Amino acid sequence: MFRQALDDKNRRREYLFRDGRPYFVLISQQFSRGDLEELCDTATAIRRLDRHRDGRGFLRGVLNGYRVMHLFSQPSTRTAESFMAAADKLGATSRSVSDIRTSSLMKGESVEDSVRTLSSFFDMIVTRHHESEFAVRASYALFRSGRPIPLISAGSGHSQHVTQSLLDIYTLRYSFAQRGGIDGKTILIVGDIARNRAARSLAYLLTKFRIRAIHFVSSKAHYPDDDLLNYIRRHDIGVHTHEALGPVLRDHGESLDAMYITRLQQEWDAHTPGERKLGTADEYVLNAEYRSLIRDDCVIMHPLPRVNELPDDWSDHPGFMVWRQVRNGMWIRAALFATIHAADLEIRARATRLSLLDDPRAR
Amino acid sequence: MFRQALDDKNRRREYLFRDGRPYFVLISQQFSRGDLEELCDTATAIRRLDRHRDGRGFLRGVLNGYRVMHLFSQPSTRTAESFMAAADKLGATSRSVSDIRTSSLMKGESVEDSVRTLSSFFDMIVTRHHESEFAVRASYALFRSGRPIPLISAGSGHSQHVTQSLLDIYTLRYSFAQRGGIDGKTILIVGDIARNRAARSLAYLLTKFRIRAIHFVSSKAHYPDDDLLNYIRRHDIGVHTHEALGPVLRDHGESLDAMYITRLQQEWDAHTPGERKLGTADEYVLNAEYRSLIRDDCVIMHPLPRVNELPDDWSDHPGFMVWRQVRNGMWIRAALFATIHAADLEIRARATRLSLLDDPRAR
Amino acid sequence: MFRQALDDKNRRREYLFRDGRPYFVLISQQFSRGDLEELCDTATAIRRLDRHRDGRGFLRGVLNGYRVMHLFSQPSTRTAESFMAAADKLGATSRSVSDIRTSSLMKGESVEDSVRTLSSFFDMIVTRHHESEFAVRASYALFRSGRPIPLISAGSGHSQHVTQSLLDIYTLRYSFAQRGGIDGKTILIVGDIARNRAARSLAYLLTKFRIRAIHFVSSKAHYPDDDLLNYIRRHDIGVHTHEALGPVLRDHGESLDAMYITRLQQEWDAHTPGERKLGTADEYVLNAEYRSLIRDDCVIMHPLPRVNELPDDWSDHPGFMVWRQVRNGMWIRAALFATIHAADLEIRARATRLSLLDDPRAR
Repeated sequence: MFRQALDDKNRRREYLFRDGRPYFVLISQQFSRGDLEELCDTATAIRRLDRHRDGRGFLRGVLNGYRVMHLFSQPSTRTAESFMAAADKLGATSRSVSDIRTSSLMKGESVEDSVRTLSSFFDMIVTRHHESEFAVRASYALFRSGRPIPLISAGSGHSQHVTQSLLDIYTLRYSFAQRGGIDGKTILIVGDIARNRAARSLAYLLTKFRIRAIHFVSSKAHYPDDDLLNYIRRHDIGVHTHEALGPVLRDHGESLDAMYITRLQQEWDAHTPGERKLGTADEYVLNAEYRSLIRDDCVIMHPLPRVNELPDDWSDHPGFMVWRQVRNGMWIRAALFATIHAADLEIRARATRLSLLDDPRAR
Repeated sequence: MFRQALDDKNRRREYLFRDGRPYFVLISQQFSRGDLEELCDTATAIRRLDRHRDGRGFLRGVLNGYRVMHLFSQPSTRTAESFMAAADKLGATSRSVSDIRTSSLMKGESVEDSVRTLSSFFDMIVTRHHESEFAVRASYALFRSGRPIPLISAGSGHSQHVTQSLLDIYTLRYSFAQRGGIDGKTILIVGDIARNRAARSLAYLLTKFRIRAIHFVSSKAHYPDDDLLNYIRRHDIGVHTHEALGPVLRDHGESLDAMYITRLQQEWDAHTPGERKLGTADEYVLNAEYRSLIRDDCVIMHPLPRVNELPDDWSDHPGFMVWRQVRNGMWIRAALFATIHAADLEIRARATRLSLLDDPRAR
Repeated sequence: MFRQALDDKNRRREYLFRDGRPYFVLISQQFSRGDLEELCDTATAIRRLDRHRDGRGFLRGVLNGYRVMHLFSQPSTRTAESFMAAADKLGATSRSVSDIRTSSLMKGESVEDSVRTLSSFFDMIVTRHHESEFAVRASYALFRSGRPIPLISAGSGHSQHVTQSLLDIYTLRYSFAQRGGIDGKTILIVGDIARNRAARSLAYLLTKFRIRAIHFVSSKAHYPDDDLLNYIRRHDIGVHTHEALGPVLRDHGESLDAMYITRLQQEWDAHTPGERKLGTADEYVLNAEYRSLIRDDCVIMHPLPRVNELPDDWSDHPGFMVWRQVRNGMWIRAALFATIHAADLEIRARATRLSLLDDPRAR
């Protein structure tokens, strides 16, 4: 029932939201454009309040006394630390729990009992699990329990990485703040859309905006599937696929507003069986020589970690936003925490009063 | 000397208490009925203060700046998280230290030096260790040192699990609040009393109350030993032993005020050598069909984790207190922290003033 | 460039300090005597403020909202806990990150990207690594980045253990407070100066003071190298080397102001190949019978952990400062945090106003 509701666009909101606020955060598609705009505003308010001692003190009172369990079955230091920093900015206490298997299943306990027991000590769960369905199953266990608490998926199997796509959207919106926002922009995505959850989640979220065109660059074997391509076309977004980065930059470089680079190592895997080489084949590397083919205001992003596909030479390009993405991950996750616990209005109001945000009434 | 004092009912208090407050918490028997009543009152005060923003703020000031070391040699996520949540509720900072072996003994250091060194950075220790005597040895090292700090055993080998029995008593007292308290009640305990430390510790603590009768249900091979049976009888409590759950429920179900279910997997072990099966033999499973044999107000408890012995069907029984036990573990541990650090009076006074507790002068 | 600057006494300060405050703490030699005196004063101010509830509240506001990453590749519970307790005393939040390898390098990421990414969520890094150059490399990555944060080395390979030597100096200064300070004192160091980083770092720092003489006791094979001996002599400090502890105590015991004992197990290694024995050969053990050979006010120190080289009998000697060293480690690390973040003046001013420190204007 819960799983089916998740796949049904019309019933999804009923199960994943409470009082109009996200409660179980499981897939990118659950957010409306309005949800995204508000989340981004809240993230900006938090980021700016954090710059001053008073603002920091205010923020740390927002979720003071709240306890967040970070339940990670997969080692993922950077994502976990980003979530914990976000919780800390709002004054919530974090606990990292990694051995759900040791602690319960070994003794024959059900996942439902484990989740319910551990959740008893917390006000919110952030979870990452190698099994795609773990976050859904845990949410359902909480949904049915007498003491539910909100849950955020921090990456579930290969399927989705919701908060990564939220930080990417936030970074694009931030980068285009003086250029009319995300609407009307042309975006290039390098990567294996079929398997890279960051690139895939971003593509889905971009359909919430009036994007002009998306260029996908990958080997033919890893082109986006027809479902995704049709889904994007139905949103009146131009879609183009390419087999190498050089030609598309020579033909379309000047028109690009942003490039989203990810690792694409399939070709290498194919050519060197036995000897596993890390890194991306040259056709998908953003070589320094391409610099003259793109505009200075073209935004350059990467979800990290990177190997060779985005060389260090790019770090002084005016559009290089990679390190800002990392910090933005912390701000958007804090915004998500605040929104779930109905503290976002208070945060935006404080920031507006201090002239750190545009007054929404003046828009 | 310390070990001997522990076994001597008359000298115990001198070593384990300071200024009338528990200092080293090692065995259930160290608490008097008066201690237990006060602990339960403090737990209730904390639980109720935590419901409101003001109360939460007050609680988080109580042990603000105190540092608790959770020294666990055995993985036990749920117990550790319960203690850390309890510390957090009162504003104390927790650190989880699990590798006492790596950190010291590997280098040839004595346990006494390790405990003394680590304790230098803390105000309190909570410890769980696979060696029965570790908590006693660590307490003695602190007792002799120039900078002692309190210590709570969170489970020591197979012998005792003090705070589990405290939360069980608290849950019974809570459940019987409108029915005259624990005195006069009849309680059934399913389990291997010889080896199950939760069941055994509870049986000891029940003798502090004027219980009418205790029914033990287990295979004959795992009946309670004569020492325990005589100990209970000496307290004027009726004791009965049974070999299966069905018959005792049919004969005495209506008279039961509470059932404490634990896993009892010995029979299975015996019948299926080689193939280790988790779970409890059918004679000790609380089948759904027994529901008509007990009263609606019969309290149903389990220390968790459970396998098959307490089926999900029971979760809507009016007396099902299992999830409340989990939360009560957090409250009673917070009460224990507060009592050790002489903050319990202040907490109960605040709760009384806000009409969250009965005024003790009105009793 | 950064590495070379580190070795160059005249350029070191330019890279390791900012606005006259330590920013990258990598080697003992980077501190001037003035730096050390101020650090010790700050440590004393923190230690005394911590005794009272008001002082504790004040301290916990000093770095409230700051986040410290403790990045330890080597298990070292005691050092990590000391740093975390120090951070906690000033209200900063700590996160322990141990799997930098899992989190990044496994995926082919550079150390520079890993450090930059993780540092995005923090305001300060404390790091201990089995590779001698890790802390330098990480500092350089931060130095070059657009968002640098301070870094403290908590032990790098076999080379240095800066904060251990700071706590040792603080303990000496504390012990000699009524006897004119460290200047003019005679100090004996037992240990393998070539490989024991605690003993070696201390020897370097002692040259910042007008020490009368240092007696080194070790097997001939592990005598201090000529570089170190000449370095000390150049500072007008008498240097003497000895092959066993007994004779030097009989000849010079009465003149010693402090003894710094460390493990010296080389001889044992040599004599018992195959069978690795922990502990120090008898020539370097401070036997109880030596007690009559030294003065009652002779300070006795050990960096811990100890095996047999400093027997328990010494714990009631009036000069036994070993446990105080452990606590002092916490205080001096807190002082270092405060100094790095420009909060030390405020702390000393508060302590002076409360008459907990001598007024510096009255000196």
